[in-house]
Amino acid sequence: MNIAVLGTGMVGRSLAVKLAETGHTVVMGTRNVGTTLAVTEVDAMGNLPFKQWCENRQDIALKSFASAAAAADILFLATAGAASQAVLDSIGAELLDGKVIVDVSNYLEFTGSDPLPALKLVNTTSLGEELQKAFPKAYIVKTLNHVEHSLMVNPGMIEGGHNVFMSGDSEEAKVQVKELLLSFGWRQEQIIDLGGIVYARAMEMHLILWCRMYQMLGTGSFNFELKQPH
Amino acid sequence: MNIAVLGTGMVGRSLAVKLAETGHTVVMGTRNVGTTLAVTEVDAMGNLPFKQWCENRQDIALKSFASAAAAADILFLATAGAASQAVLDSIGAELLDGKVIVDVSNYLEFTGSDPLPALKLVNTTSLGEELQKAFPKAYIVKTLNHVEHSLMVNPGMIEGGHNVFMSGDSEEAKVQVKELLLSFGWRQEQIIDLGGIVYARAMEMHLILWCRMYQMLGTGSFNFELKQPH
Repeated sequence: MNIAVLGTGMVGRSLAVKLAETGHTVVMGTRNVGTTLAVTEVDAMGNLPFKQWCENRQDIALKSFASAAAAADILFLATAGAASQAVLDSIGAELLDGKVIVDVSNYLEFTGSDPLPALKLVNTTSLGEELQKAFPKAYIVKTLNHVEHSLMVNPGMIEGGHNVFMSGDSEEAKVQVKELLLSFGWRQEQIIDLGGIVYARAMEMHLILWCRMYQMLGTGSFNFELKQPH
Repeated sequence: MNIAVLGTGMVGRSLAVKLAETGHTVVMGTRNVGTTLAVTEVDAMGNLPFKQWCENRQDIALKSFASAAAAADILFLATAGAASQAVLDSIGAELLDGKVIVDVSNYLEFTGSDPLPALKLVNTTSLGEELQKAFPKAYIVKTLNHVEHSLMVNPGMIEGGHNVFMSGDSEEAKVQVKELLLSFGWRQEQIIDLGGIVYARAMEMHLILWCRMYQMLGTGSFNFELKQPH
């Protein structure tokens, strides 16, 4: 498939590499190609400048958000949550109509005084829901927002049945996204479909517990497993 | 120890029975003893009228909230979250000073139109935090709010390392609550202390995912386990 990964940070990079390795034609999208390629410094998270990173990735093209989206069947929204809506706005509803948009982003707000980030859209709504409302003819599927980027595409790094959640209004879109999750290494029984996009709020609110565990463990290499009595 | 369980619903009953069985002197608290004992109908959740239930529980006394709290070293707040603050208000700060209050409650709001409940206090605060602010000389410990009442006191019903979280500003209070959790059957390695009461918000926000799993599974007999690479 032709897949666009919107966002050039570590989440976008992990997704793009895995998607390319599993046989897809991958284009990464960014606001301004020239600006992204002009970066020469390692970023605050220790990531290589994009130009240096992509030297070994000739199979992954870099284009503007709109150009990347135009050729894609499926889009991964791997931007900072604060930018998600603006990125889709910049592409425009017409280009997005009928496309599957896999929203892995989280709209977190950090303040100096609070020890935990807050969610900008929360409780009675969520980022996933608002994106679906803004682009009613696109098919938003929320998933993977609650696991670290390396675990997203390598779930086997944790043994056993830890889970990935998904939500979205289109059953067909979720079937396609589930296929991609399986290709990433997730097993069928690890994938929990919560139902419609309204349940994105449960997935996004769960992230605050994730953030605290990340602070405590000093790593994002963890996940949660649903356990029931035998 | 002398322990008060505030609330006579199924959460309060499960806690009271377990605490009595593990050797504590247990008093349950209610708004109005006469009213609680006058109930003759099974409630909407299928629970026996309190009077009928307590016939087999001569070891558990029923008193007003304030009377129950007065004699207690530790209080369990097992009320509906919407009532938690009012129940503590009715007891009064003076009686609560220096006491450990184990807050297992959740302040959920149900609307007709939303498929999931919302949290009344969320994101930048939480019920646990607000109770601590309202009663600064009491020691609020948030725990068990994210597991079903039967699992609270019988964690062995699910095999393996599923977790219970706790948060609170007083290390001494948390040591006492941890002892009680151990006596309920939780193992040391299952208990995750998130830190100060500010982290109650992570525990309360996680509940929305719990609610969705409850809807999907049709039972509260489940929990989550933190998983890390070996």
